[in-house]
Amino acid sequence: MRSPSVVTEPGLPESVTIYEVGPRDGLQNEKAIVPVAVKAEFVERLVAAGLPVVEATSFVHPRWVPQLADAAELLERLGPDGRRHPVLVPNERGLQRALDLDREHIAIFGSATETFAQRNLNSTLEDQFAMFGPTVERARAGGLDVRAYVSMCFGDPWEGDVAIEQVVAVGRRLLDLGASQLSLGDTIGVGTAGHVRALLEAFNGAGVPDDLLAVHFHDTYGQALANAEAALRHGVRTFDASAGGLGGCPYAESATGNLATEDLVWFLHGLGIRTGVDLAALVETSVWMADVLGRPSPSRVVQALAG
Amino acid sequence: MRSPSVVTEPGLPESVTIYEVGPRDGLQNEKAIVPVAVKAEFVERLVAAGLPVVEATSFVHPRWVPQLADAAELLERLGPDGRRHPVLVPNERGLQRALDLDREHIAIFGSATETFAQRNLNSTLEDQFAMFGPTVERARAGGLDVRAYVSMCFGDPWEGDVAIEQVVAVGRRLLDLGASQLSLGDTIGVGTAGHVRALLEAFNGAGVPDDLLAVHFHDTYGQALANAEAALRHGVRTFDASAGGLGGCPYAESATGNLATEDLVWFLHGLGIRTGVDLAALVETSVWMADVLGRPSPSRVVQALAG
Repeated sequence: MRSPSVVTEPGLPESVTIYEVGPRDGLQNEKAIVPVAVKAEFVERLVAAGLPVVEATSFVHPRWVPQLADAAELLERLGPDGRRHPVLVPNERGLQRALDLDREHIAIFGSATETFAQRNLNSTLEDQFAMFGPTVERARAGGLDVRAYVSMCFGDPWEGDVAIEQVVAVGRRLLDLGASQLSLGDTIGVGTAGHVRALLEAFNGAGVPDDLLAVHFHDTYGQALANAEAALRHGVRTFDASAGGLGGCPYAESATGNLATEDLVWFLHGLGIRTGVDLAALVETSVWMADVLGRPSPSRVVQALAG
Repeated sequence: MRSPSVVTEPGLPESVTIYEVGPRDGLQNEKAIVPVAVKAEFVERLVAAGLPVVEATSFVHPRWVPQLADAAELLERLGPDGRRHPVLVPNERGLQRALDLDREHIAIFGSATETFAQRNLNSTLEDQFAMFGPTVERARAGGLDVRAYVSMCFGDPWEGDVAIEQVVAVGRRLLDLGASQLSLGDTIGVGTAGHVRALLEAFNGAGVPDDLLAVHFHDTYGQALANAEAALRHGVRTFDASAGGLGGCPYAESATGNLATEDLVWFLHGLGIRTGVDLAALVETSVWMADVLGRPSPSRVVQALAG
């Protein structure tokens, strides 16, 4: 299988971490409900392809995300390697389920905007911290690692522009609660490279170094990889991505996919940056999942290499 | 229509030039043969949307590119504004046709590799210069501007890797013949950001400044915009792109589209870099052309904004 020719560049790292979100952020946005055995195989194949972290599922209420109603069963199938398989936890009840299943790594889902806090968290921008506080505290007391997503960092479908200072204030407070990493999400894919750089600089200015930050881009406007490039050049070393670019129909603005892991891997390997990922095994996995879902992968690399 | 929020970045230019290749590089790779009146409307709508240069067509033999067999008729319809409508010219016979039609701007199509020179030019890597020499000389004597494409700059489907020194040597000689600008083409879309930077540096080292260079990326592996970002940061100020990402089926490796003009415009405008392009008018044009061709545009921006 073709691979990129390697031309390194001074100042870039030898390796970075890809945080794979396909089974959770990808599948929760797919119309199809995938059988739990297929999900387990998906996660296991992603791990076998070399992805160091594969977010497996979410304990949100099945009324909101029926696609992930089998979360507990999936985690039982995946076994105890919890560090590799974080699970999204919306509240203390979700945390209890995670603790009951001996998980070691959870993620919480904060909002950078008032409207999304109300719609997604049934909270306010301010009250989310009180809501997450006990969850994070108990998780940390139990030895769990806590990642905090910050959604709508670059724009919000209801509010439009989102002030950088507001995003930094939200992120700063989630770290203060005890999160070990922030994932800065461009949930609707409107961010551009200068905005990425400005947001990262503002975090640095507020005392948050790049090694506490991950970036999470959606490809709604085709900017995901260019934004990842801007973040890499700034100093970010953790990148969220979704195998095959899973995460919604590419023809609907409201539900376009994440940055495709394969396209990110091609970019990074072309720069000689190690990811640990076996691109051929990953592409094979995405082709298989596209077949399960009954639609072609939006990843350009998958399209090119699977042909 | 939604537009990117603007966050500027120090060190980047106030404006750049987009060299639109959709009517030529896009349509020559489409299966459908588009009627000449539709092509003329396409070019005129692109100009009306603010694109400063729209490569209109090619005088290659219709046996090789039947899609562009109507080149002379199209140029007659477009009228005498030749500076805005370059035409591809493969040889002296093509040049004569361009001169007969009072064109002011032509492009020649060189190869960075031996195999592609043989297959595309029926020449050798070395002999292409003797072949292009009289064409460029006569064009320049007639006051025409000559752009030189260099294809397969980042990889070749038959030869694999292409040495940077070889690309620079080819480009240098095309400039020496009298070309005013080189367009460095990643014809099969395999280039990555470090490779882009290394190639540009090698040109600079050989005495070719960035303002004589344009970049021409295909999105086969999803790298086109990230590569454009690398070129922009290096100092390139002219970017080839194709309205709607025209240029082939996204599911076939051998014929994937160019960088979509809309995705490039979103990126540049997000950085506060002027292009002169009215994004809404451009998207409308691409939606109309997608309808003519009977398949959706592969541009993410078109998909998002046309929904």
